[in-house]
Amino acid sequence: MIVPFHVTEMLRRVRQKFAKPADEARMYPNREAFTALRPVRTATPESVSRFWQRLSGGEEARQALADETTLENTSTYSANIENLIGTVKVPVGVAGPLRINGVNASGDYHVPLATTEAALVASYARGAHAATKAGGISTAVLYEGVLRSPAFVFDGLLQAGQFVDWVVANIDALQATAEATTRHGQLVSLEPVIDNNIVFLLCRYVTGDAAGQNMVTIATSALCEHAASECPVPIRAWYVEGNFSGDKKASSLGTMTGRGRKVSASVTLPADVVASLLQTSVDAMLDYGQVANLGSLLSGQLGAQAHYANGLAALYIATGQDAACVAESAVGFTRMERRGADLFCSVTMPNILVGSVGGGTGLPSQSACLRILGLQGSGHGAALAEVAAALCLCGEISIVAAMAAGHFARAHESLARKR
Amino acid sequence: MIVPFHVTEMLRRVRQKFAKPADEARMYPNREAFTALRPVRTATPESVSRFWQRLSGGEEARQALADETTLENTSTYSANIENLIGTVKVPVGVAGPLRINGVNASGDYHVPLATTEAALVASYARGAHAATKAGGISTAVLYEGVLRSPAFVFDGLLQAGQFVDWVVANIDALQATAEATTRHGQLVSLEPVIDNNIVFLLCRYVTGDAAGQNMVTIATSALCEHAASECPVPIRAWYVEGNFSGDKKASSLGTMTGRGRKVSASVTLPADVVASLLQTSVDAMLDYGQVANLGSLLSGQLGAQAHYANGLAALYIATGQDAACVAESAVGFTRMERRGADLFCSVTMPNILVGSVGGGTGLPSQSACLRILGLQGSGHGAALAEVAAALCLCGEISIVAAMAAGHFARAHESLARKR
Amino acid sequence: MIVPFHVTEMLRRVRQKFAKPADEARMYPNREAFTALRPVRTATPESVSRFWQRLSGGEEARQALADETTLENTSTYSANIENLIGTVKVPVGVAGPLRINGVNASGDYHVPLATTEAALVASYARGAHAATKAGGISTAVLYEGVLRSPAFVFDGLLQAGQFVDWVVANIDALQATAEATTRHGQLVSLEPVIDNNIVFLLCRYVTGDAAGQNMVTIATSALCEHAASECPVPIRAWYVEGNFSGDKKASSLGTMTGRGRKVSASVTLPADVVASLLQTSVDAMLDYGQVANLGSLLSGQLGAQAHYANGLAALYIATGQDAACVAESAVGFTRMERRGADLFCSVTMPNILVGSVGGGTGLPSQSACLRILGLQGSGHGAALAEVAAALCLCGEISIVAAMAAGHFARAHESLARKR
Amino acid sequence: MIVPFHVTEMLRRVRQKFAKPADEARMYPNREAFTALRPVRTATPESVSRFWQRLSGGEEARQALADETTLENTSTYSANIENLIGTVKVPVGVAGPLRINGVNASGDYHVPLATTEAALVASYARGAHAATKAGGISTAVLYEGVLRSPAFVFDGLLQAGQFVDWVVANIDALQATAEATTRHGQLVSLEPVIDNNIVFLLCRYVTGDAAGQNMVTIATSALCEHAASECPVPIRAWYVEGNFSGDKKASSLGTMTGRGRKVSASVTLPADVVASLLQTSVDAMLDYGQVANLGSLLSGQLGAQAHYANGLAALYIATGQDAACVAESAVGFTRMERRGADLFCSVTMPNILVGSVGGGTGLPSQSACLRILGLQGSGHGAALAEVAAALCLCGEISIVAAMAAGHFARAHESLARKR
Repeated sequence: MIVPFHVTEMLRRVRQKFAKPADEARMYPNREAFTALRPVRTATPESVSRFWQRLSGGEEARQALADETTLENTSTYSANIENLIGTVKVPVGVAGPLRINGVNASGDYHVPLATTEAALVASYARGAHAATKAGGISTAVLYEGVLRSPAFVFDGLLQAGQFVDWVVANIDALQATAEATTRHGQLVSLEPVIDNNIVFLLCRYVTGDAAGQNMVTIATSALCEHAASECPVPIRAWYVEGNFSGDKKASSLGTMTGRGRKVSASVTLPADVVASLLQTSVDAMLDYGQVANLGSLLSGQLGAQAHYANGLAALYIATGQDAACVAESAVGFTRMERRGADLFCSVTMPNILVGSVGGGTGLPSQSACLRILGLQGSGHGAALAEVAAALCLCGEISIVAAMAAGHFARAHESLARKR
Repeated sequence: MIVPFHVTEMLRRVRQKFAKPADEARMYPNREAFTALRPVRTATPESVSRFWQRLSGGEEARQALADETTLENTSTYSANIENLIGTVKVPVGVAGPLRINGVNASGDYHVPLATTEAALVASYARGAHAATKAGGISTAVLYEGVLRSPAFVFDGLLQAGQFVDWVVANIDALQATAEATTRHGQLVSLEPVIDNNIVFLLCRYVTGDAAGQNMVTIATSALCEHAASECPVPIRAWYVEGNFSGDKKASSLGTMTGRGRKVSASVTLPADVVASLLQTSVDAMLDYGQVANLGSLLSGQLGAQAHYANGLAALYIATGQDAACVAESAVGFTRMERRGADLFCSVTMPNILVGSVGGGTGLPSQSACLRILGLQGSGHGAALAEVAAALCLCGEISIVAAMAAGHFARAHESLARKR
Repeated sequence: MIVPFHVTEMLRRVRQKFAKPADEARMYPNREAFTALRPVRTATPESVSRFWQRLSGGEEARQALADETTLENTSTYSANIENLIGTVKVPVGVAGPLRINGVNASGDYHVPLATTEAALVASYARGAHAATKAGGISTAVLYEGVLRSPAFVFDGLLQAGQFVDWVVANIDALQATAEATTRHGQLVSLEPVIDNNIVFLLCRYVTGDAAGQNMVTIATSALCEHAASECPVPIRAWYVEGNFSGDKKASSLGTMTGRGRKVSASVTLPADVVASLLQTSVDAMLDYGQVANLGSLLSGQLGAQAHYANGLAALYIATGQDAACVAESAVGFTRMERRGADLFCSVTMPNILVGSVGGGTGLPSQSACLRILGLQGSGHGAALAEVAAALCLCGEISIVAAMAAGHFARAHESLARKR
Repeated sequence: MIVPFHVTEMLRRVRQKFAKPADEARMYPNREAFTALRPVRTATPESVSRFWQRLSGGEEARQALADETTLENTSTYSANIENLIGTVKVPVGVAGPLRINGVNASGDYHVPLATTEAALVASYARGAHAATKAGGISTAVLYEGVLRSPAFVFDGLLQAGQFVDWVVANIDALQATAEATTRHGQLVSLEPVIDNNIVFLLCRYVTGDAAGQNMVTIATSALCEHAASECPVPIRAWYVEGNFSGDKKASSLGTMTGRGRKVSASVTLPADVVASLLQTSVDAMLDYGQVANLGSLLSGQLGAQAHYANGLAALYIATGQDAACVAESAVGFTRMERRGADLFCSVTMPNILVGSVGGGTGLPSQSACLRILGLQGSGHGAALAEVAAALCLCGEISIVAAMAAGHFARAHESLARKR
């Protein structure tokens, strides 16, 4: 048998669905009339109500989403969403105290985590307990810079070169144009990348305490328009984003040079903490670390880590960050090594995209989660990024210990399934 | 100046923080006492209340998270989270109707999207409108199989080979052991990968209508224990997951062979739909597509796409999926090509991890969102995966059109900033 | 200064070259007449002579390439090259004896290495000495299969699915058609990969003792023609290779599933061998190994290794292999771990493409190198692949030791520069 | 059957080899005595002769490698190899004239290609003919910089940060120290990358007309020793290369920022040239280009191209370059797009490592090949890099045309097999 099983099995299922030849037609375009939804930007209780007249799910569904408190806040939510029909309630658990000794974050944090996956909060809480017992996690923001990468298309290589020449000669005006659009953003570097007749300009910004995705888009758009109107080299086309920046996706670029904030976090776990709180040994954790690192490599991960995404998604949802950025943030490098009898553990995460202002951080329950952390509002962006990295380190410690001790499946069985 | 600007700038900031030498100490471990939280598995209004006595944020924060309805549902939430302190309310908007002509999904769907990012729902809604106007999106699940990849460590290559020999000879017993732990899961393939003295067993399961992550962990754990107790070859160590499966992270393995469901979705947009609804032209979209594809390649993305993560995160949060899986799901391949005067567009997404049962799908508001789709409960897993892919195709169409038309920055400016 | 130095420096140089505006023209197409070379398939001393009338370089160059022995062998070379003008002489050094205890290779080998890079042979010889002193290297071919990946283009997803259905139903006839073209090749698996309307068929062959690249092209071409003429589903276009197979380039696919032969090799170096022959310690080598592994990850290598390419290129050139395959072969996984006081080292290389027959293996000096190994002609393909992996392991041991001991720069200074 | 065929087939073969249990022992270490080769740095006819007394292969093999001319040149070869036993003769064919309109290369070149793979020279010659007929290929070196990436290990993040601070404050002294070791090398940038307690310093050099690998090693070693002796921060260990630079392997870093020279080359092929010389059409080539690009993405290539390695390996061997660098050089981006009725084609290759001096460029036959190009000796490094890129563009044009026309298999059948 030389055709993989899954192929034959899938074909069998599809044939069942398409038993009668006429059924094929159901994959063809279908021009029946439909009634479009009228888009709503500024929600009101009435606009929500109008949508529900179109939606299936029944009264129970409507109550679950469009509850009274939500309806009272429609105008608040309107800054963050279109076509509002309600709110989904994501349960929040707390992990902590998590002690952080950081360049920007400092103190014992209770970290709110929004998730529907059983065992997640318990696992991060266990890691936080061990790390805090060990004296806390050292953290530092190592790098900062949100990227936009507009693209310019020319007739040929010669014009591409001339354009880069012009850009470099006019760099001050371009910077001024970009920065004129924003109070908090600064363009800190601009690197042209030429692929024959196409030029990408890698524009890096610092964005204050905001994640800054919109800020950099608007600033870059102004920069591009200035270039397009002033540069004497004929431009065939330009785009504010050439899909080079790694926005909302894992990329080698992000793994290497980072997007958002690059943060490193580490702790040395004493052998007795490993034994008492994690119920395994330093040797067992190091042995598993070797295998896990090989697994990372063999499967072609970007970076090498276990499950940053779990902690990040839960923190991002709880605190009103852009949850889609988990796709780019959940890459990095987890390391463990022996230090005498103890265990040094670190994470270095090059793409943490968080803000203590902007985005969803001002919504009622999201803002509440930031206040639990003491990191709501201006001045806390870098500290929040360090909390995110420290949290991920807790998750790595906990899962590696569980794998090393053979507890991983048992924990999930007991916390998820048996309830 | 040969040191990058960001390095010198970051050093300047750090030096400011560490002006006095004594400040260094703040990055050292700190052994002050702390009071651990007592873990809570089964939440009650009282347990929630106890936590809040420890949390900062004040009464307003507490009201925002631990509202009355949430407190009434503590036992419901307990199956999905530990240390419950409340719920975060994520606004939900609706995009649709989205017409799907699929092998599994069929009909006009209203898709609930939970996000705090302005412009997201509007953008997907625009793409859905264009696709539906074009007769709808064809979809098919092409592959199915959730992976677990346990690792076994041996003395050397010889023992690794003998173990694989034993596994193959005992494959039926191993399969039976794995499948005995689950009603819905089936082990459909097992592929050993040898790296000298370490053997990974790539175990692929179909998991019915559940996403199935816990199901495959428990089944694989049983399989491993059987192998460990029965196989005569001495095993130095084994782990239920060798960090090879791509669970919760983007990986080449996932891009290539998939994890969860691999779904393809396509539509051919008539030129007049592009002109009227997307306000650009087929040529302009194709031209941008070339640049965007180059950007993908130059930045070392896994796959090549624009922003699957946006739609996936919003759909996963709304419908009670595991939001951390966005990290692995948000990879794939977007393609566009000319068909006469019209534009063929497709997405192929190899790692969609969704369930219509299990996980957070049973929680009140999440279940409500699934009911809006008509995909709540058994029998809808594959259709939900097709909805996810079709949704992502809408997002790709919309962003490519916006970039091609030069509207991208303007849309964000108007929808996000100016409110 | 926010533009990288290299950009401004390069611009400065380019401006120097293009000082006068007229100079721009030199990058434009130039329609001056030219005289094409008449292609020569079957070389003779006369055809070589005719080419030299056109070539610059002078009589000395001609003597160096078109020496008498080469001219005597023009008909021999004609099977391997077109437009022959002579031979380039690449110096060959020997490393060994290298003791191999393999599934296929067994004994003490003297390995001929063709290179112009000083220190290369010395480094591999040092590693071979240490490995042999340790009792030799264990090796095994773990997998075998040269890939071709033809592509078929259809109108849409539906037709793509129907084609796959047809392929699976007609698999025996397709296999027979492919295998009818070859005495030694067997089609061992066929896996369809669908990306919406495009289907790639991953065809894996075993190719006997030949590297087999042409064999699999011809067999796959026959398979495709059969499918194109017999399959009732309308095919818009097909190509014998869809650039999916990883032929002549590093790819994740190759890293994961392999192309050619996957070979693993390992040795445990006693601590005293490390001290006496490699002049460093087991600890020092392990410490460097951690850093080198991190370097691999941070720079986004495929796999993680130090310099397989050096040994492979030298062995491939010496023994008449396809040197371009170094691009795909030079990926894999080097591991080191402590075993008591000693050092376990392994390499696992998934893409070794070598043959003991075919390609350049029959040319006089290349055949001589294979005879030095005792691996010339039929029956030796797998053993040669194991020699290649064992050789690369020697190179990894040597370079890691040199880095750990701080000897790396010194060795190159002494062997390369000071001569 | 759920275990892949190749696993069971391989197990069957291995069992055959290990029929008797005693055979297992042949994979164990074997402590029999052996006689080491005495290393020879400075070869003489006598040293060559001594080696041959140890080598199998017989007199015929000896004649083929250790011919009279080689023996006369032993001292010449000694600068490039150890343990010399002769030379392997690689046949050289010529492709050209290849017209290049470049920033550095300019004129009609006859390109010597050393290979044992039939059809290779014919294919590149065909591409060169088409490109020259189209008016020639425009080329430019876009970037220059050979990387070394030493690593420094510290106790923790704090010390790592202090070290970077020291490096930046002492950058001038470090640069001076590095540059004092070399006449031609200049350190053009230094970028520290921190992964918690480990710091990599990405040192980029321009290296004049040499490939420069040894030059940058020696300069960086001096830089490191200076840092190690002067920096007050305690350094636990340092290594002259942290396996980050991409030396001798494909890496994302190389794909993105380049190593050696980044070169772009392009040509617009008139429709009639495509029809008459390549026997296909612009549309057919573009259609195949779409599929080939998808194949690149699906298989996880670094970059997207067809077979740069073929041309590079042949050129590198012919001209005395380091053939192992094919592993890092053979990555990049091939693009094609319609220009009216014609076809624009480009390659951008970020890692071309060639020199017109140093390495094997001074050996008799290698130097002869450089003289055929008119690029031997000082002043020609950049032009040689442009020739390499232009050559690869010819190869891409030819293979895409062959695939599009369905000629690929036929060409290999006729040129390789039927002879």
